[in-house]
Parts: sequence; structure tokens; C-alpha cells
Amino acid sequence: MVKLNDHTREEYMNNILDILENKAIEQFRNAFLELHPADQVDLFSRLDQEKRARVYEYLSPEEFAAIFEGLEVNDQKEIALELDKEYAAEMFNNMYADDVADFLGELQEDKVSAILKAMDKEDAQDVKELMAYEEGTAGAIMTKEFISIKATDTVADVIELLRREGPDAETVYYLYVTDEYNKLAGVVSLRDLIIAATDEPIINIISTRVVSVHENTDQEEVANLIQKYDFLAAPVVTSTNELVGIVTVDDVIDVIEEEATEDLGEFSASRGATDVNVTAFEAAKKRSPWIILLMFFGMITAGVIGQFEETLEAIVILSAFIPLIMDSAGNTGTQSLAVVVRGLATGSLEKKGLFKILRRELGTGMMIGLACAIVLMGLIPILYDGNILLAFIVGTSIFLSLTISTVIGATVPLIINKLKLDPAIASGPFITTVNDILGLLIYFSIATSLLQYL
Amino acid sequence: MVKLNDHTREEYMNNILDILENKAIEQFRNAFLELHPADQVDLFSRLDQEKRARVYEYLSPEEFAAIFEGLEVNDQKEIALELDKEYAAEMFNNMYADDVADFLGELQEDKVSAILKAMDKEDAQDVKELMAYEEGTAGAIMTKEFISIKATDTVADVIELLRREGPDAETVYYLYVTDEYNKLAGVVSLRDLIIAATDEPIINIISTRVVSVHENTDQEEVANLIQKYDFLAAPVVTSTNELVGIVTVDDVIDVIEEEATEDLGEFSASRGATDVNVTAFEAAKKRSPWIILLMFFGMITAGVIGQFEETLEAIVILSAFIPLIMDSAGNTGTQSLAVVVRGLATGSLEKKGLFKILRRELGTGMMIGLACAIVLMGLIPILYDGNILLAFIVGTSIFLSLTISTVIGATVPLIINKLKLDPAIASGPFITTVNDILGLLIYFSIATSLLQYL
Repeated sequence: MVKLNDHTREEYMNNILDILENKAIEQFRNAFLELHPADQVDLFSRLDQEKRARVYEYLSPEEFAAIFEGLEVNDQKEIALELDKEYAAEMFNNMYADDVADFLGELQEDKVSAILKAMDKEDAQDVKELMAYEEGTAGAIMTKEFISIKATDTVADVIELLRREGPDAETVYYLYVTDEYNKLAGVVSLRDLIIAATDEPIINIISTRVVSVHENTDQEEVANLIQKYDFLAAPVVTSTNELVGIVTVDDVIDVIEEEATEDLGEFSASRGATDVNVTAFEAAKKRSPWIILLMFFGMITAGVIGQFEETLEAIVILSAFIPLIMDSAGNTGTQSLAVVVRGLATGSLEKKGLFKILRRELGTGMMIGLACAIVLMGLIPILYDGNILLAFIVGTSIFLSLTISTVIGATVPLIINKLKLDPAIASGPFITTVNDILGLLIYFSIATSLLQYL
Repeated sequence: MVKLNDHTREEYMNNILDILENKAIEQFRNAFLELHPADQVDLFSRLDQEKRARVYEYLSPEEFAAIFEGLEVNDQKEIALELDKEYAAEMFNNMYADDVADFLGELQEDKVSAILKAMDKEDAQDVKELMAYEEGTAGAIMTKEFISIKATDTVADVIELLRREGPDAETVYYLYVTDEYNKLAGVVSLRDLIIAATDEPIINIISTRVVSVHENTDQEEVANLIQKYDFLAAPVVTSTNELVGIVTVDDVIDVIEEEATEDLGEFSASRGATDVNVTAFEAAKKRSPWIILLMFFGMITAGVIGQFEETLEAIVILSAFIPLIMDSAGNTGTQSLAVVVRGLATGSLEKKGLFKILRRELGTGMMIGLACAIVLMGLIPILYDGNILLAFIVGTSIFLSLTISTVIGATVPLIINKLKLDPAIASGPFITTVNDILGLLIYFSIATSLLQYL
């Protein structure tokens, strides 16, 4: 039994590479097609152009479709250029429509038209429909290769249908029942089908309690739904309840990963730039705008401090604590931001209630601020020649700025979310900068007003 | 048809609440048990103690098990105290073993023993076995309620088995084939089963190419495997290939969400503290240690700046740019950290190669640093009375510190990961502080050495 643990898998893969080297066509096809598509993709990625050309020769377009579907989009563009037009067209015909749509979405207009023209009319039509959807919606991630059956069919009819169309469908574990107008009427799970009698009409085993999503629903909402109900798939319908596609659980996993990457990216002002595959120049191009924007905020901060030049001339040592005040406020605000961001993503925030969270964060900020103030007011006199005044200024500033920063760190993303705006605005660096400026204003104001007591 | 969109769902739920209010037992049972378990949990969560008591009366322990499984662990503890002992024991008997194990894992030793003693011997044994696994491993997240069949069974035998045991199994879409020693021999998908002839022996339709995971495999690895191959489940085996459980795709989704929350938490020094359900005091307790630790780093920064007191007395305006230098370096470092953290989580980093990433980040840092330096050296003379010296000091410092911060932001998590240490150490705030200190040293050293030219 091919157990496919890492060691055996490596041996098996190397074996196939050798076979390919030796141009043993039949042997290659037998061994290679035994592999799971994901492993076929792995192996294909290791080949140079010459070996790849052999693969196009040895595998039919239909067999190669499984590999092409699994490639990264940049690789797909490269490979597509290596295939001859008829081979490519037949390959696209045999790919799942949503995978073709994803790929074409990255190409230029003229190339897209050329490919669609070369494909089978029906397959091309499916692809065009999918491409019409806005990115990040149910329609954009759904697949059209699902099985739909009629309530009047019998179990035997359905099994016959599965024999014919089963291999081409993304999933047969849920079979969707539609009426004569193609409207969704219910669902039958394969589990229920298999234990029913063969002459039983579907209407007897149908479950009409079916949860569907509208084609324009946000992908994150679809993912939450599938996760909540532990579904393997969810049907996608139009406003008139016409069944147009299904979203499967494996797509949901990809959506969740994508959203997690996005969250982290927004969080660190590196959204769209966490891709490891781009060059340094492209990465710099994507990340600079944010850094330069934040640098302008830094200029504002510099301006704020500049207003207190007199105070600084009087107590030069005040500048030493600028980083401490800013970092503590920045970090606490970032913690609050993380709480809210995850809470929104996992849906746990809605259950809790927004005001409860803000009150909780305020209390947390005050307590952390108090703890820090106590530590500092103990430490500073020791390290700075018994300078109680300095300790008082720093301690009070810390307490006030931490209290404010948690509230801001929690409030900003909530407001952004309510306004249905892009939470990237609420990214960590932005909130940190706002907290910095407020923290410094508090710090220097306290110091300036106490200046007279020096 | 109950379409269960939000509006209809709300009506339906309110209807059930009314029925419960009226103590109409049969009507309640009919309506309530129509709901998907996830919706049953939602509705149950809205009840007060009096109404809950009615639910325990109206539903059998087996029916209530589905609700208990879906509750948050803190709620489970509360609810468990409201149930009478026999009801609770029977409920635990009817829950999936991994859900019982998860719950008992949160209780005191004596309570755990009491519950296990009250349960059926066989069910208790399953739970004990699951509890023996270390948290975060395949064994800890697997379920024991799977269907295993023999290669000598016929399709008809299996269908009979599904009729009997199907309802109790977590999933029947993959049927695992074991030999007489209970060792994993292969798998049959329900898809293949249903299109086979009823008298066909399983050995004819079995797939021996089955990917399994060892019981001690890290849960993130299991999740990656299931995601890579688009499986609905993965079998878990011992070192002697004995089949002991399965991990289903819905558990994988939970793992991915958990890991994403963890990443964001470590990233923002708020790990373990992004739970919205704790009180302000508990949140402060969890988050203060990090903030206070980082505050000590702040004291180090203060000490560094203090070394340059003379320079600051000479050019007081230097202190105005401390935040700008620090923030820009901090933000760029955080971006690099995000790239590496996501790259490690999604596995895309391994394909790319570590040195390539570091080189890429170095180049990115230099380019961003150059862009910022140019902007500043243009802006500062305009805003600060043609002070070219200041512009030069700030510009050069920005360039050098951004270059260094990207490399550090990328290198630290990679080293932490290689050493198999806790990447929380590589959290955003830690790296930011390191970059702050380096940035300030660069800044003040340049300023001090140029002091003579003032």
C-alpha cells in the first residue's frame, strides 16, 4: 500500500522523475496518474521546460487540467504560454469553471476573449457568468459543477445520474433538488440516498430545510455560515431562488486563510504585500505608500513636540521618555485592536455587545496604566537621582495615555466596521500614530504646566 | 419550505420561544427539533434559567447532547451544574467522545472522575483515551465515531452497516477499511460505494492510496494536509498503523481559525488575551506582563537617549524627530514580520527559500528607506528654516534604520522558528523595540558626530 508518508512519497516522486527522464511513456502515465492531483502539481513544479514539454505530450488535456488548476497564478501564466492552442483550449474545457474564471481574471482583455472563443460554447458560457461576479462574493468563489436532481426522480435514477456525471462534479455528497424552473427546492445528502430503497422517489427523502446564500453575499459571510452549520457545501441562488452554483468547504478554508492573511496585513500596514513571491522592488512599491503616509504623521508628531521646545530646553531629560510613553501607548492600543479585529472576524464580538467591549477595554487600559505608573514612579527616582517630579510627570502621563489608547484601539475599528469602510484604515500603525500624538500631548502638557514648580 | 434566511429564521425562533412560554411540550419538541443543531444552540442561549429547566424536561438527554456540544466551554460548565446527575451522564454518553474530552479537560480532577464513572464503560473509555493526548495534536482533535469496514464485506453489507451506525458517525463520506488487526488498509468513498453493484466486495473498489496522520502530529500540520488534498477527513493511526480516529474538515476549519487568532495575538503581544469574554481585570492581568516588560525596554531606550544629553542640549529640535525615526523603523519591521509570519503559516516560505526572503527584505528596506530619505530631505529644509544639517541627519538615519529594521523584522521570527521556540518572542512589539533602539543609536550617533560642524 502506498502510504504516502513523507519518506515513501519522496522515493515515489523521484522514481517518477527517473521514468520521465527515460521517456517511458506508458510507465510514466501509470505511475504519475496514480498520484493525488496535489502531488502531481508538486512533482510538475520541479520540472524544467524540456521535461514539461514531455508531460504535455504524455498527458491528455483532460489529465493535465488537474495539474493546471493547482498551480499558482503566476506559474499558470507561464505554463499557458508553453501549451499549443488546441491543447490549451481542451484543457480549459476540462477544468472547473471557477478555476478557469480565476485564471482569466488575471489576464488581459484580448487574451481572455481568445481563450473563451476557443473553448466549448457551454463551458465558455459558464466561465463568463462566473467572471461577471464581483470579487469576494459567493458568486466569485462558487463552482458550477454540481449535481441537481428532481423531486420526481427515484433513488435508482439518481444513482444512474451519479454514474454518468459523478466524476465531473466537484462534490456529490449533497444533491440539490430543483423544480421545473430550476429553483432550489431542497437537498438530499448522499448519506440519506444510500440507505433508501432504490425505487423510492426523491420527494420522500428530501430535506426542504436547506440554507442557501445569495450570489452577492460576502465570501466571509458564506465561510461563517458553512463553519457554523458544519456543512460540506452551500447552494448559491439568485434573488428569484434560482440555483446557480455551490460553494464547497475546501473553498471556505481558502477564504478563511485569505481573510486571516488580510487581517494580519491590514494590521501591520502590509496588506497585499505579504506575498513572498514578489521582487524587492515590487514589495517596496506596495509598502512604501503606507510608510511614507505614516512618516507624514511622524512629521505631525515632530510638529507637536516642536511646540514644546521651551519645556524641552528646560528639562532636556524629558525627551528620553518620549519613546517609552509612545511605545507603551502604541502597544496597548495594538492589543485592543487585535481583540476587536479577531472578535469581528470570528463573530464572537456580536454576541458580546459592542459597549460591553469598550467598557471592558477602558477598564483594562486603566488597570494596565495604573500598574505601569506604579512601576515607573518607583523606578525613576532610583535611576534618576530622586527626581520625583520627573517620576510624577511620566507616571501620570502613562496612566492617562494607556487609558485613552485602549479605548481608541478598540473604538476605531468598530466605527470603521459599522460604516462598512475598509478596516485597513484601522491598521495597527494608524492607531499607533494617533495614540502616539495623544500620548505626547498629554505628556508635554503635564510637564509644561508643572514647569513652574521646578 | 423553511428557507432559514435571517428574517424567516428570526420569526421561526420567536415562534418557538412563544411555544416554550406556553409549555406546549409536543409542539415545542416538533418545532425545536426541526432546527439545525447550531440554531438550537442559538435559541437555547437566549433562555433564562427557568426556561432552560423546561428544556431539560422536554428533551431527552440524547436530544440535548447536540445543544451541549455547541456551547462555549464557560457556558457548558454553568449548564452542567443545572442538570441532574443521571440526565447529565446519559447526555455525555450520547455526545461525541472528542466533545466530552474537550469539556472534561477544563474541569477539576474529582469532577472528571465522577462524570466518567457515571458514563457507560465503553463511552468513558473512548473519552479517557482522547484525554490522554497532548493538546494541539491530531489525537486531541480527532473523533472516535467513524465507520470502519472490512475488505471482505460486500457493498450490501456496508449499506446495512450504514443504516445501523450511520446516524451516530461524525462522517460516513469516507469509510475506512481495516484488516483483522484493526490496521488501516485503505479507504472507500461513499461516492464510489453508491455507484458500485450491491454484491461487489469492497476489495474491488478500495483505494489503498490513503494519506494518514500519526496521532501525535501537530494540528496545524493536519490542517495543512487536509487543505492541500481537499479531503473531508483524514484517518489517524498509531505507530503500528492501527486506526484510532479521524480528523474531519470542520475541525480543521476550527484549527485554522484558532491558529490565525494565535498569530494575530502573538503579533500584537496580546496572545491568549484576545478573548472578548473575560473581565477587564482578567484581561489586564493577561496583558500587563507584556506591557510592563516592554516598558522596561522603554527604560533602556530612555537610557540610550540619556547618553546623548549633550547632543540634545545642543540641538533641542533633534528630539522632535525621535517619534518619526522610531515609528518608521517600527512599522517597516512590522511589515517584514507579517510577511514572514504569514509565509510560515501558509507554507509558502519553505518553497521560496529563506535566504531569498532575507535578501528580498533587505532590498525592500533599502528602497523604502531611500524613498523616505528623499521625501524628508526635501521637506525638512522647507519646514525648518532651511536647516540642511538637520535634514541630512534625519534622512540618513531613516535610510539606515529602515534598511536594518526590515532585515531584523524578517530574521528574528525565522531564527525563532528554526530553534522551534515560541514565536511570541518574535511578536511585533519586541521587534519594534529592538528596531527603535537601533534606530535611535544610529540617529544620535550621526547627530553627535556631526555636532562639530554646527
